[in-house]
Amino acid sequence: MTEIEITQEFLDKIKSLIEQQDNDELLLHFKGLHHADIAEVFDQLNIDEVIYIVKLLDSQKTAEVLMELDQDDRQKILDNLNAREIADEIREMDTDDATDIIGELPDHVMTGVVNNLQGTEMGRHIQELIKYDENSAGGLMAKELIKVNENWSVTGCLTEMRAQAENVTRVHSIYVVDDDGVLKGRLSLKDLITAPSDAHINDVYIKKVDYVDVHTEGEEVARVMKKYDLEAIPVVDELNRLVGRITIDDIVDFITEEADKDYQLAAGISEDVAPDDTVGQFIRARLPWLILGLIGGLGAVYILQGFEGALQNYPLLFFFTPLIAAMAGNVGVQSSAIAVQGLTRGTFGKSILKLLAKEVLIALLNGMALGLLILAFGYVMDIPNLVGLTIALSIICVIMVAALIGTSIPIILDKRGIDPAIATGPFITTSNDIFGIFIFFFIAKMILGF
Amino acid sequence: MTEIEITQEFLDKIKSLIEQQDNDELLLHFKGLHHADIAEVFDQLNIDEVIYIVKLLDSQKTAEVLMELDQDDRQKILDNLNAREIADEIREMDTDDATDIIGELPDHVMTGVVNNLQGTEMGRHIQELIKYDENSAGGLMAKELIKVNENWSVTGCLTEMRAQAENVTRVHSIYVVDDDGVLKGRLSLKDLITAPSDAHINDVYIKKVDYVDVHTEGEEVARVMKKYDLEAIPVVDELNRLVGRITIDDIVDFITEEADKDYQLAAGISEDVAPDDTVGQFIRARLPWLILGLIGGLGAVYILQGFEGALQNYPLLFFFTPLIAAMAGNVGVQSSAIAVQGLTRGTFGKSILKLLAKEVLIALLNGMALGLLILAFGYVMDIPNLVGLTIALSIICVIMVAALIGTSIPIILDKRGIDPAIATGPFITTSNDIFGIFIFFFIAKMILGF
Repeated sequence: MTEIEITQEFLDKIKSLIEQQDNDELLLHFKGLHHADIAEVFDQLNIDEVIYIVKLLDSQKTAEVLMELDQDDRQKILDNLNAREIADEIREMDTDDATDIIGELPDHVMTGVVNNLQGTEMGRHIQELIKYDENSAGGLMAKELIKVNENWSVTGCLTEMRAQAENVTRVHSIYVVDDDGVLKGRLSLKDLITAPSDAHINDVYIKKVDYVDVHTEGEEVARVMKKYDLEAIPVVDELNRLVGRITIDDIVDFITEEADKDYQLAAGISEDVAPDDTVGQFIRARLPWLILGLIGGLGAVYILQGFEGALQNYPLLFFFTPLIAAMAGNVGVQSSAIAVQGLTRGTFGKSILKLLAKEVLIALLNGMALGLLILAFGYVMDIPNLVGLTIALSIICVIMVAALIGTSIPIILDKRGIDPAIATGPFITTSNDIFGIFIFFFIAKMILGF
Repeated sequence: MTEIEITQEFLDKIKSLIEQQDNDELLLHFKGLHHADIAEVFDQLNIDEVIYIVKLLDSQKTAEVLMELDQDDRQKILDNLNAREIADEIREMDTDDATDIIGELPDHVMTGVVNNLQGTEMGRHIQELIKYDENSAGGLMAKELIKVNENWSVTGCLTEMRAQAENVTRVHSIYVVDDDGVLKGRLSLKDLITAPSDAHINDVYIKKVDYVDVHTEGEEVARVMKKYDLEAIPVVDELNRLVGRITIDDIVDFITEEADKDYQLAAGISEDVAPDDTVGQFIRARLPWLILGLIGGLGAVYILQGFEGALQNYPLLFFFTPLIAAMAGNVGVQSSAIAVQGLTRGTFGKSILKLLAKEVLIALLNGMALGLLILAFGYVMDIPNLVGLTIALSIICVIMVAALIGTSIPIILDKRGIDPAIATGPFITTSNDIFGIFIFFFIAKMILGF
């Protein structure tokens, strides 16, 4: 592996060079480093040291480093740069990244930066891209691409491409358009190299091309690119004109971010947090879910008080309450996770009713297995038969209801346009706790009649 | 979007054409379809119909369709083909896919297929690739790549490349090796096109290249490719000889699978399941976790029985038990999710002790907020002061311990080489339930002295 290990010695050296303001040595130290590695170095320096380096290195390099950093860290750096300096950084970025950064700036800074970019090509691109929703194809796409006219010759095409390729880091596909800029097809570099040089683009290009339009949602773009194993996909406007392209690396970031968000939501963490976030950020992300759980717990207190009459003769019911609540919560989370994954990955079967029926059947079978274990435990521990039966029967009913709730809530949320991932985790556990405890005592009251 | 919508009419048509054995019409219907779309059609047909189509279409197409299917569905199809037919499919696959499929076959079928491939280039490649662990770079890599010798001329290189490119679906990078096959650097198609034709490879190639070796773990490969935004990475053996390459689309699949697995584990689902799996598969994936929860619940019963003496004077404690258990569970899951993400994404700070201290501090602050809410609730509901204080104080202690456990277990598992993701979900909830309830009643006994 050629990846550079950031050692403590290296960091100490950098820090002391900054203190000595030995710019030549500093430049030498950063020369061979990949921007992703520089970003890791920045994570270990204080903000003044980082600003020193940012102002020292050329903006072509620092622009890439900025894109590697967390939004928070990037914000801190940009806060220390003036509008002209920020504009210099942005000029070196890909258009999609540049637009994201502009969108993150406070309003008054944004105006200054936009003014600095006025009249440049980048300025025009940003003005176009910033109109789109962040999570739409328009918001994900970049303007850098190679397009050729269907009427060109292969030789003319190669010359033109060399000029266009300057702005494009990696050539994925060459897109073919007509005189109106409407997307007609694509051409691979391989095809172009192997084509006779006197051929016309019209003779060699592939008329079939996958594309999305500017309003397609990010998740849908990810699904299509994954399904068809695409490394880049062209984006068209309402008139089918080629306006941009999305590359797989942006989609990889998108997929990872979505997965992280779903995972954290399932664990009851509502903002995207990283281990190095501040205590305040963590509390903001976590406390609301705990308060939700607390309210649910108080609901349980209320229900249990209503069945206080059972305390005298059937204390065992109260000892088993945490078990019932835990079961309801666990099954609810399992069912909701399956529903959420089915919804987000688009792997759902056609019929929702069929899934619900299957979930209830699974719950019935799982419940029966657990019920039998409870009966066996009750027999060994000399629990009165009727109490054992009550608990076993309750487990079955509670699990079935929990599965039903766990499956339905994500589906209902999704239909209403709310991210179903919010349904797994504390939300489901809390509501299932309450339902579970209520069902348990209701059945107990029916059977034991206290 | 050019994606094809699989309509019921289309499916009915296909089914009736199969019944009529109208092969010409069938071939026409499947002609324009992308293999990913054919895979979706297969999902809607019964196994006999699928086999009919598989035997009808040429193996170049069906090989790609097979790779799109779930392992289960693919298995069902392969069960209906003989060793020669399977070998025909495999011959058309990329070497990495071919090796995966061979690995999935039952032993006696595998031998037959391997015999059928004996002496072919594919046979040799498979024999090499199958040695590696599935989740290592060796197990993920394919043999298809374009390599050129550092001593060649650009013109000779172009000719040689055209021949090699036949086997490669997409050209990512051209790798440069020396006479011993040792990886020296890379060359982009863009560089090659723009180089003067009388140049030597030695003059134009980039000496810096990221690579992994055959034993690098899949997660590490994903991390490096994501970090450096790579679309392909070369793989070298112990002698630094270029032996294969991994492309980003395989890594996208790998990342999605890992994220799905983590998400399901967090929800207490231990096998990878999809909504269309059988009831039996679901039960196998879910029942073990429920039994774990049941055992935990029985542990809670045991603890509560030990504090039976409090039942007479402090029934409220038993009403609040589900609340305490839920809080312990929620906080445990939050803390473990943060630890797991830190571990798997490699975004952990250096010091584990620092993270633990931070988690405990966050728990203390969250606990104090929740404790105050409990005291307010107790005041409104006329709960005896000492009982309210007991509950509030318990919440704080329970949450702090839960955070400590939630953070430590993933770290300990990770150190022992066990996937830390197993720690989120039922495992943490169950153990924290028990600890929480015990701490609650222990504090109650100290304060209230029953």
